[in-house]
Amino acid sequence: MKLLEDKIKKLGHVKEGDVLKVDAFLNHQIDPVLLDKMADEFIKIYSDKKFTKVFTIETSGIAIAYPVAQKLGIPLVFAKKSESINIDGELYSSKVISYTHFREFNVIVSKKFLSENDDVLIIDDFLANGSALRGLLSICKQANVKVEGIGIAIEKHFQKGGQELRSEGYRIESLAMIDKIDAKTNTIVFHK
Amino acid sequence: MKLLEDKIKKLGHVKEGDVLKVDAFLNHQIDPVLLDKMADEFIKIYSDKKFTKVFTIETSGIAIAYPVAQKLGIPLVFAKKSESINIDGELYSSKVISYTHFREFNVIVSKKFLSENDDVLIIDDFLANGSALRGLLSICKQANVKVEGIGIAIEKHFQKGGQELRSEGYRIESLAMIDKIDAKTNTIVFHK
Repeated sequence: MKLLEDKIKKLGHVKEGDVLKVDAFLNHQIDPVLLDKMADEFIKIYSDKKFTKVFTIETSGIAIAYPVAQKLGIPLVFAKKSESINIDGELYSSKVISYTHFREFNVIVSKKFLSENDDVLIIDDFLANGSALRGLLSICKQANVKVEGIGIAIEKHFQKGGQELRSEGYRIESLAMIDKIDAKTNTIVFHK
Repeated sequence: MKLLEDKIKKLGHVKEGDVLKVDAFLNHQIDPVLLDKMADEFIKIYSDKKFTKVFTIETSGIAIAYPVAQKLGIPLVFAKKSESINIDGELYSSKVISYTHFREFNVIVSKKFLSENDDVLIIDDFLANGSALRGLLSICKQANVKVEGIGIAIEKHFQKGGQELRSEGYRIESLAMIDKIDAKTNTIVFHK
């Protein structure tokens, strides 16, 4: 999506450790004009599908997922991050390793909000090694929901998450795919 | 706002310790149809004001603030919660005590995203003792921004936060005001 790529080029910052900071428009300050257009794009890409719920993970996924759920007129469910495992029978939970924050956490979802009748569209901000996405997919499996599609804002195509998950049969659509980033020169090369 | 009150009556659950759970539509599963109408209401209430930014705090504030920023066509900035104090000169920070989670945390905002030219509308999900809101107001003060209005989804009017802050001169508009909740009978009494 050219609009998102242009925004990343203009306002994105590459930091050491293959970190791409997009806090000016995506995950600290949020540009709703851009996110609305991203939502339109996700909906266009998946126009052949029917969804009953949009599913994401706090925190950065929420603002990206909101306009998608809004435009589709369906509920948005977000998985919560939790330090402690709190399996009281009423929660789905899965373990996620954050490479950005060098820690492990659990993602939890109340069983009330995902059920086997649901067809979900998973939305998230970044896809790199795929750990967070695998956490969400594990919860979908526990809940017996059908994952009809996955929409990602920015995929780090040079990391293995997206390719591995696609080879396992998941349909993943990323609005911006990055082949290479370089902190020294602040270079961002998009996948063509 | 009758629509929100009806939703709280229908789907809200009162738990011990004056906790009102609204996770079915506001802060775990999100009903975008309701939140869009809440955004319209905030905008109507503050139609006499001009804002340059909507300001909230992660996590539950984001989905409520998004449609407000979207409809106003202005950026949304959310404060981040941080366990550690990380004052590197590039951040505004403030301390907040969470009575729900029995812990203290810092809220931080990058200096890039709030400046003295901004007129902000603060949006949040709950107002009870006012600790989170005071954290946001402290950051606004540090950033020299003008707080032109505060919009709250649910105010626990039986706690002191709202009344204290109003007496200090802040304009706070809450879409649902609760006078009393009782866990034993799951009773919710709205302020008339």
